[in-house]
Amino acid sequence: MSQPLRLGIAGLGTVGTGVVKIVRQKAALLEARSGRPIAISAVSARTRAKDRGVSLDSYAWEDDPVALATRDDVDVFVELMGGSDGPAKAAVEAALKAGKDVVTANKALLAHHGQALAELAEASGSVLRFEAAVAGGIPVIKALTEGLAGNEIIRVMGVMNGTCNYILTRMEDGGLTYDEAFAEADALGYLEADPTLDVGGIDAGHKLSLLAAIAFGTQVSFSGVELEGIGEVTIDDIRQAADMGFRIKLLGVSRMTGRGLEQSMAPCLVPASSPLGQLSGGTNMVVIEGDQVGQIVMRGAGAGEGPTASAVMGDVMDVARGLRVSTFGQSASKLVPAVAAKATTPAPYYLRTQLADKPGALAKVAAALGEAGVSIHRMRQYDHIEDRAPVLIVTHKTTRAALDQALEAMQKLAVVVAAPVALRIEEV
Amino acid sequence: MSQPLRLGIAGLGTVGTGVVKIVRQKAALLEARSGRPIAISAVSARTRAKDRGVSLDSYAWEDDPVALATRDDVDVFVELMGGSDGPAKAAVEAALKAGKDVVTANKALLAHHGQALAELAEASGSVLRFEAAVAGGIPVIKALTEGLAGNEIIRVMGVMNGTCNYILTRMEDGGLTYDEAFAEADALGYLEADPTLDVGGIDAGHKLSLLAAIAFGTQVSFSGVELEGIGEVTIDDIRQAADMGFRIKLLGVSRMTGRGLEQSMAPCLVPASSPLGQLSGGTNMVVIEGDQVGQIVMRGAGAGEGPTASAVMGDVMDVARGLRVSTFGQSASKLVPAVAAKATTPAPYYLRTQLADKPGALAKVAAALGEAGVSIHRMRQYDHIEDRAPVLIVTHKTTRAALDQALEAMQKLAVVVAAPVALRIEEV
Repeated sequence: MSQPLRLGIAGLGTVGTGVVKIVRQKAALLEARSGRPIAISAVSARTRAKDRGVSLDSYAWEDDPVALATRDDVDVFVELMGGSDGPAKAAVEAALKAGKDVVTANKALLAHHGQALAELAEASGSVLRFEAAVAGGIPVIKALTEGLAGNEIIRVMGVMNGTCNYILTRMEDGGLTYDEAFAEADALGYLEADPTLDVGGIDAGHKLSLLAAIAFGTQVSFSGVELEGIGEVTIDDIRQAADMGFRIKLLGVSRMTGRGLEQSMAPCLVPASSPLGQLSGGTNMVVIEGDQVGQIVMRGAGAGEGPTASAVMGDVMDVARGLRVSTFGQSASKLVPAVAAKATTPAPYYLRTQLADKPGALAKVAAALGEAGVSIHRMRQYDHIEDRAPVLIVTHKTTRAALDQALEAMQKLAVVVAAPVALRIEEV
Repeated sequence: MSQPLRLGIAGLGTVGTGVVKIVRQKAALLEARSGRPIAISAVSARTRAKDRGVSLDSYAWEDDPVALATRDDVDVFVELMGGSDGPAKAAVEAALKAGKDVVTANKALLAHHGQALAELAEASGSVLRFEAAVAGGIPVIKALTEGLAGNEIIRVMGVMNGTCNYILTRMEDGGLTYDEAFAEADALGYLEADPTLDVGGIDAGHKLSLLAAIAFGTQVSFSGVELEGIGEVTIDDIRQAADMGFRIKLLGVSRMTGRGLEQSMAPCLVPASSPLGQLSGGTNMVVIEGDQVGQIVMRGAGAGEGPTASAVMGDVMDVARGLRVSTFGQSASKLVPAVAAKATTPAPYYLRTQLADKPGALAKVAAALGEAGVSIHRMRQYDHIEDRAPVLIVTHKTTRAALDQALEAMQKLAVVVAAPVALRIEEV
C-alpha cells in the first residue's frame, strides 16, 4: 500500500469541518482515485471544545497553527483560518519553509502576499494551491492554469461575490431598495463581519487579482484592482438597465493591454441574455476568453461548506496524485510586476444624473459630452420631480479618460443638480 | 535548460494543423508555463503535399502513423486521425506499448476501446489523455477527474453535439422543419460524413460514455448508452415545449442507480430558463453534479480548430509539467464493469400522438395511461385536422417501464392513429 498523504488542518469553521467530513466519509473513494490513503494527522482551531458534528478524537490537537504546520507527521498544511496576515500568514510561511505543501482557501492572504509566498514555495520545492480561494466550488484555477494552458488569455471576467449578486438580484426581483436588500442579506448571515469586504468589492477584487496573475503571467497585484462597490447602485438603475436589455452585476474584468494590466471590480451592465446576465442569487460565474478556445463559461456555488470543501479536496487530491504545478502557473521568478492600467479599453457607458428644470439643460449636458469626445447612443429625460428631471444616457464606446473628462465638465454645469453616476457596459 | 517535450502528431486536418500552429507560434509562452520547450519531431497524415497554411519542413515525415508513434525522438504521440479502429487504434496501441504518452481527440476510439487502452497505458506507465474528445475546448475531463475528485458524482449531463443543437435551435428560432434545418447544417459543413453520427446521437453518446466512466468509476460502456436521435423531433414538439416553458435538447444524462449505470442520449425537454435551456447554436454545455459541490455548469465551443487544439494542448502541457493521472481517474484495474440500467429514475414525460375524431377517444388514452400507473399532469387536445386531433400530454413522474407499458397499450387503441412520441423531461 502506498504511503498515506497526511494533512494538518488549521481552522475548523464551516469549510474545515466540511473537509474533515469528506476525508472521514469518503476514504475509499479518495484512495481509489488518488492511489493512496488521505489521512488527517492533526488539527488546530481557536476553540477546541466546540461541537462540530464530527469527531476529532483521532487527530492530534495543536493550539498553535505554526506548530501544526511544521509537524513531522504533516505532509500538507491545509490553511482554512482566513485573514491576510497574522496566524494564517505565519503558519503558511512556516509550512512552506519546512517544505510542506500548502492548500488554502485564503484569498486575502494570496492577494496581498501571493508573490512572496509563491517564491517561498518554489524555493522549498513545495506546492501552494488555492482553488477554494476563487469562486468556491468552481474548479476555475485548474481550468485557467492547466486546462487552458495552450491559450493566450484575452480577458477574464467574473461574478465572484455571491452576496453582492444576491443583493442585486433581490433589488431587481423583489423591488427592494439597496438598504432593504442589504438588511435581508445581513439577516440571512450572508455578509462578512466587515460588510465592505463584500459590498465594497474587496473580496471579489482579491479573487480577480489571483485570476489575473495566472492569466497574464504577472505578479499578483491587488492594489492594481480598480474597486467600486455596489452601494451607489439604485433600484432605478436596475430598472432602467432592464428596460434597455441589461442587468447590473458586480463584475470583475481583467485584460492585458498595451498600456498595462487592467483589473476592475465594479458594477457593470451586461446583456440580460448573456450567461452573466442570466446569473441569479448567490451563484458565481467565471468567464475566460482565450485566443484559441474562445469563451469558456463556468458556473457554480461560490461559497458554502460543501462547495468550498470540494475545492480544497480537489487540491489535496492533486497533491496526493503527485501533480505539481507552480502557484500561478509558471515559475514565480518569471512573473513580471504588473503595470496597472486604468481601464483604457473603450466601452459604452450608462450615465445617470438629474437636471434642473431650465431651458437648454439637456443641450448643455450633450455639449459637455460632445466636447469630451463622448458620443451619445441613447438619451432619455424623464418627468420632473420637484424641479429635477432624471436623465439617462447610454454612450457609444469611449475611453474612461474621455468619460471622466465629460463627467467633470458635467459637474461644473449649474443645471446638473445630482452628481452623475457612470456604469460601464461590458460587452460579453 | 530542461529537455524539450517532443511530439509526434498523426493527423493534420483542422485540429492537427491548429496544434502545429500553437506549438510554433506560442513557443515562449508554452515553455514559460510548462518549464520546458514543446517541440514537434515528426508528423504524419494521409497526404503530404496539401497546403495547410503552416510549414512542416522542420519536422520528419512518416507515412505510417505506427512508425511515427514509436519513433525514438517522440515522447508524446498526438493522435488526431479519428476512427474507432484501423490506423488510429493501431498507432495508439503501438505508442502505449512503446511507453510513449498519448494525447488524443478520438472519442470513438476511447468509447469502444477505452478500458483496454487504459490497461495498456497503465502496464507501460504511460498516460493516455483525451480532453479534446469531449465537449471540444471545455476542460471538462480535467474538472471531473481532478477538480471535483473529492465528490461522489450524482449526475452528469451534457449537450455535446453542436450540430444537433444547431438544428434544434434553427427549428425553434427559424421555424424550419427538421429536414430544412438538417439541409442547412449540411450546407454549412457541420455534419459528419455519416450524419447519423451526429443526428443519431452516436458522437454525443461516445462522449457521454467517457464522462460516465470517470464519474462513476466504471469501465467505459458505450454499448450501455441508450441512444435516440433527433430525427423524430418535429417543429410542433419544439413549439409545444416552448409554450410550456421548455426547450428540446439532445441531452446526455448519466447517473449511477441501485440497479446499475444509466446512460441516455436522447432528445429531452429542459426548463427554458435553465442554463441548458438557454444554450443556443453550436455551443456545448456539460453539467456535473457532485454531492459536495452541487451543480457545476461548463459552457464553451464544442468543436473547431482553436477550441479543439486548445484542449489537445492542455493535455500536452500537463504531460510537459509531469502531471500523471490515470486515464479514467483511477487505476484501470479498479474500474468495475458497468451494469447497464435502462432509465429507471422516475421522470415526467412529454407525449404526443393523434386521435381519431371519435367520441371518448381522449378518455381511452387517459385510461390506458392510468392502467399503466402513469398519471397525467397536463393534457391538451387541439382542433382536428382531417379527422385527426393532435394530443399532448405531460405526465407526472413515472418510470420508463410504466411509460412503455402505457405506450404499448395506447398503440393498440383504434382511436390512436399516430404512433405516440415520448420525450423525457429532465429536471435540471
